[in-house]
Amino acid sequence: MATLICRSTLCWNLLVGQRKVVCSTAASAVAACRSFQATRRVFAHEDATAKSICGEKKQNPVLKAPKGTHDVHPKQMAIRGKVFNIVEKCFKRHGAESIDTPVFELKEILTGKYGEDAKLIYDLKDQGGEHLSLRYDLTVPFTRYLAMNKISRIKRYQIAKVYRRDNPALGRYREFYQCDFDIAGHYDPMIPDAECLKIMYEILSELELGEFLIKVNDRRLLSGILTVCGIPESKFKTVCASIDKLDKVPWDKVRSEMIEEKEMRPEIVDRLGEYIKLNGDLSLIQQLSEEPLVSQNILAMEALNDFKLLHRYLEIFGVADKIVFDISLARGLDYYTGVIYEAVLLSDKTPQNHPIGIGSVAAGGRYDELVGMFDAKGRNVPCVGISIGIERIFSIAEKKAEESGEKIRTTETQVLVATAQPMHLEERMKLLTMLWNSGIKAEMLYKKNPKLLTQLHYCESAGIPLVAIIGDQEIKDGVVKLRDVATRAEVEVSKEHLAEEIKKRTS
Amino acid sequence: MATLICRSTLCWNLLVGQRKVVCSTAASAVAACRSFQATRRVFAHEDATAKSICGEKKQNPVLKAPKGTHDVHPKQMAIRGKVFNIVEKCFKRHGAESIDTPVFELKEILTGKYGEDAKLIYDLKDQGGEHLSLRYDLTVPFTRYLAMNKISRIKRYQIAKVYRRDNPALGRYREFYQCDFDIAGHYDPMIPDAECLKIMYEILSELELGEFLIKVNDRRLLSGILTVCGIPESKFKTVCASIDKLDKVPWDKVRSEMIEEKEMRPEIVDRLGEYIKLNGDLSLIQQLSEEPLVSQNILAMEALNDFKLLHRYLEIFGVADKIVFDISLARGLDYYTGVIYEAVLLSDKTPQNHPIGIGSVAAGGRYDELVGMFDAKGRNVPCVGISIGIERIFSIAEKKAEESGEKIRTTETQVLVATAQPMHLEERMKLLTMLWNSGIKAEMLYKKNPKLLTQLHYCESAGIPLVAIIGDQEIKDGVVKLRDVATRAEVEVSKEHLAEEIKKRTS
Repeated sequence: MATLICRSTLCWNLLVGQRKVVCSTAASAVAACRSFQATRRVFAHEDATAKSICGEKKQNPVLKAPKGTHDVHPKQMAIRGKVFNIVEKCFKRHGAESIDTPVFELKEILTGKYGEDAKLIYDLKDQGGEHLSLRYDLTVPFTRYLAMNKISRIKRYQIAKVYRRDNPALGRYREFYQCDFDIAGHYDPMIPDAECLKIMYEILSELELGEFLIKVNDRRLLSGILTVCGIPESKFKTVCASIDKLDKVPWDKVRSEMIEEKEMRPEIVDRLGEYIKLNGDLSLIQQLSEEPLVSQNILAMEALNDFKLLHRYLEIFGVADKIVFDISLARGLDYYTGVIYEAVLLSDKTPQNHPIGIGSVAAGGRYDELVGMFDAKGRNVPCVGISIGIERIFSIAEKKAEESGEKIRTTETQVLVATAQPMHLEERMKLLTMLWNSGIKAEMLYKKNPKLLTQLHYCESAGIPLVAIIGDQEIKDGVVKLRDVATRAEVEVSKEHLAEEIKKRTS
Repeated sequence: MATLICRSTLCWNLLVGQRKVVCSTAASAVAACRSFQATRRVFAHEDATAKSICGEKKQNPVLKAPKGTHDVHPKQMAIRGKVFNIVEKCFKRHGAESIDTPVFELKEILTGKYGEDAKLIYDLKDQGGEHLSLRYDLTVPFTRYLAMNKISRIKRYQIAKVYRRDNPALGRYREFYQCDFDIAGHYDPMIPDAECLKIMYEILSELELGEFLIKVNDRRLLSGILTVCGIPESKFKTVCASIDKLDKVPWDKVRSEMIEEKEMRPEIVDRLGEYIKLNGDLSLIQQLSEEPLVSQNILAMEALNDFKLLHRYLEIFGVADKIVFDISLARGLDYYTGVIYEAVLLSDKTPQNHPIGIGSVAAGGRYDELVGMFDAKGRNVPCVGISIGIERIFSIAEKKAEESGEKIRTTETQVLVATAQPMHLEERMKLLTMLWNSGIKAEMLYKKNPKLLTQLHYCESAGIPLVAIIGDQEIKDGVVKLRDVATRAEVEVSKEHLAEEIKKRTS
């Protein structure tokens, strides 16, 4: 076995070279070493033999990213960078701090927070020690952080990946980014909630993704309505799961499902149907407040009164035009306790001038009880937040960029240091050093004698706007020929003024 | 069971309120609902009962981040942000694109790349489907990306977390960031290698962490030396593992280990000892090239000739002053095939004026065979890169910040909108909206009637430099009192000029 290796040691042995020769003295090693080049040449053949002798049936691994995940290519990264920048700038404009938490948590931290979706949590293998799971969202780790550090007020953002073993679909991944902004603390009603909606509005407007609407509902109102419809509490979850389908499935189908599969009495379902078909502006709130049954439900009235306050604040913030109160909005997660919201992008309007949502891109709500679940004494810290579903936004931004035909640069290089004649490698390196040390983003080709045409082509394909060309004459004169790649105009610039000139032209 | 719940449904039921009452009609529900507030108050007690009846022995989960991981607090995030910014700016200055890869890979992708360290890889639980592992570094996923997309040249950076089930120690975590920069492609010798070292030098200089040295060696030279010492190839790995300890353990101990534990003949160990004690500048290279045994080893001579070229390039780049050729540098990872390097920070010099390393903060090298391990036809893409061990740098930066006593801001808020009298919530919101819409980073307290002193204290603790104060008189006059928090100087500014004035003062 000493002379035959398995693939796991391939690199090292390849490097070492002479696997056939075990030298016992330095002198014999020297002689043996000379056979290295020859040995290297027959290596490929030997390796195949080695594999079978080792008894390990090794093959090249399947080259793919795991199911539901994907690599992000440089062009996509450039587009994402712009999106992240808009999001982060907005979070900072609203005075948020940032924190970071590990990508995995103790399994028990996530237990009991996600209802039926808990089956989508990725667990780590038990390799001894703690039982760990990949985070499912950023909200539960955030509340664990608050409880653990006894933080009773914070405004924080976090941009990080979360993991869900869901069936991958177009724009739905198993690993994806969330951009979360949350306000924790005991404050006066609806002030932080309104700011969250303002942030959602600002981000979606700045991203220029097209028309959008923000649907708002309240878990308290929804519960009140289910109650007044006579739905037993034991059916609340399953009924809400049906309601949640209404943005994809028409009412008739949802109604049938409730009656046939979920064994609800038709008159109760129809009563519910009247409520959850409702959506509209402030007048809807007023209408519901005056409705005989709803008006006597304490929870529902709490929610409706808060809605009025929220609407007033949203008007002041100048974002009420995109807000729709929508009783059919239920949201999946267990932990919401108050206002919930979801932003949808709108496709073109239908002939009836009725906007159709093409998908949720941001969502959130109030979760006042989650921190208390972690606290030994059940002390709560009221929280409200938003989460931007950035992957769908990336897809739209990528599509828009592609359609516009605009060239997307993947680097920020300002200038390529090039040579017109061979043998100027060291001169290029000197110039490059000078530029780097002046803070200029600069590159050269890693060849001793690149052709000028190759260098110019590189600039065109990489979108580098300037080339600093040196040749015998320029070196003698202490100057550089600065060429504008687009216009091909050239000027001579002294070395001392080069950095300054490049800054001027690329600012 | 319908009236008793387990913790997993806590939030939803808490919100719903009346778990004891199953209403069959809307009318009875209304009456029942009134008991909600009372029900909520006894909830904590009920929940305990529910738990025991459910038969699940539930307790509050242990509030901690998993072993070897940690949360990053806002102050730490602020310091990290500055460090990341320096690193990323440097990578961009050198023309790098960026990519992203998933946090986990198919297990077989990582297999056979890390030698003995493979035991430190985190595996995911088999929940059906693929076998996955968390990435151990960014290099193997990068080469998988290259092979998969048949990319034969790229210069890319990636800043992301990697995972190792190592024993946590001071500054060593199980989840930590790496900042990688790599150049892939067939290029002329040592040009990309020199640029990697230049980047390492630039980053460590800009971070102002103190004196540092970059140790350089070459796997080919090391193999050549082991060969000429008469060490059998089967012992190369274990010998290198011993050599790798030399930065922590004196030679005597390493020598004993080799002789006693690894059963090597003392004269061979002593011969090796003569070589690996060598470190120095260019003259060392010259000396080794002329050494009778080494000079006849083809691999070693390839490395030494490349060293001369590398040294010349590093001189041009102006970074040769921090470079030391050190034959004892071995590096742990299997996949290196050529130049390897490691940057160490130096503590104060010893009385003998001999610098002592206090730890590696960046490392890397050439790995020409790794892409070929993924390619069906074994086609290689030569690669060279660096990885900045940013966690240790964070610790140092945090300690420096703490020692300096400098106040670290965790937000970028420019102004707090405050009120001097009660009842001006809506006026504050209006002013805030105007500021946000002008791009000003602004906050207010989320209280209807905050005290002025509370608002001023908030500015001081958060480091917000300005307060925009409104009261009855200001509202009447359409002005704002702009107060400098540090000097307490106040001026009246008209609302229209407020944003402009704030920008001027905080630029």
